[in-house]
Amino acid sequence: MALIFATGNRHKFKEASELASKYGLELEMRDVNYEEIQADELEEIARHGAEKACALLGRPCFVEDAGLFVRALSDFPGPYSSYVFRTIGNEGLLKLMVGVSDRRAEFRSVVAYCEPSSGPMSFEGKVQGSVALEARGSRGFGFDPIFTPRGASGRTFAEMAIDEKNKFSHRAKSIEGLLKWYLRKSGGRLEK
Amino acid sequence: MALIFATGNRHKFKEASELASKYGLELEMRDVNYEEIQADELEEIARHGAEKACALLGRPCFVEDAGLFVRALSDFPGPYSSYVFRTIGNEGLLKLMVGVSDRRAEFRSVVAYCEPSSGPMSFEGKVQGSVALEARGSRGFGFDPIFTPRGASGRTFAEMAIDEKNKFSHRAKSIEGLLKWYLRKSGGRLEK
Repeated sequence: MALIFATGNRHKFKEASELASKYGLELEMRDVNYEEIQADELEEIARHGAEKACALLGRPCFVEDAGLFVRALSDFPGPYSSYVFRTIGNEGLLKLMVGVSDRRAEFRSVVAYCEPSSGPMSFEGKVQGSVALEARGSRGFGFDPIFTPRGASGRTFAEMAIDEKNKFSHRAKSIEGLLKWYLRKSGGRLEK
Repeated sequence: MALIFATGNRHKFKEASELASKYGLELEMRDVNYEEIQADELEEIARHGAEKACALLGRPCFVEDAGLFVRALSDFPGPYSSYVFRTIGNEGLLKLMVGVSDRRAEFRSVVAYCEPSSGPMSFEGKVQGSVALEARGSRGFGFDPIFTPRGASGRTFAEMAIDEKNKFSHRAKSIEGLLKWYLRKSGGRLEK
């Protein structure tokens, strides 16, 4: 039986599916409109979301919440990255960085898995990098065109194919944390 | 018995108390750490918050949620105004408005009241105005120093005493909506 990823974001689902297939696991996308809370910590948002999504579906599932934390902006846009992207976008974030020399930023992702019979488990992934000087690339989504992970020779996430992005990405790390745990839990039955 | 305003914001409480006293009502501040959801509409956030706060207190109470909606920024920072203020602040918002000629903005407030035995009632207040060219004034809180209500001769909320701010403010309107309804509901027993 496929593992349910409760999300409405096809990009996230594709990134996660590509990883899961390497572990011999199949994911199923379910666009559940679960309630999200406001909090400064992604973990709190994701764990709460997983419980809500699981209650709505009545089946084990996981959710993922991610954000871009820019050091010089006191971690803005952080947990509200999706809203900030929908409103001021990459252009707005670049404008806020005009004249700012410290361009360090971190993408964080938290995956939370929940079963109807037990509380949520969560897994975090981070990637350090910097805010690019201008938007570059057309792949990925959100702030991908303005984020350069450390060690990627100045390329942005939006200039990478999923496979390459997954070598660096915060989401790849959190999803892999979940997948490894899930396979151990299932006694490796689903492993290739 | 005083009407409970579930908030940790002393500025909001002071504004509301000053209004309530004109209606012969007394407010009590309770800093309840109730859960807030993420939503694009303040009303949804406030109604949900009132239910949570009421459940925690086991007594009738109201909450208030407010935001600054800047037209040229697709309504940013909107429902996440508090977080945006804590991170990029007035300085960040002014930076986003550099070179933007349409400076129209609206402050919105929604008050939601809830009783243990019944669902929430909500009241909205709005004030139109514009984003000032620079921060002015030291009263109030949040984005008050950069918001000029229409009809205030260019003065910002932070340049006004509470009494004057309450003549214009979104929060005064939503709170008055609640107070009038509350007094009607109580049969005017508490009216002066």
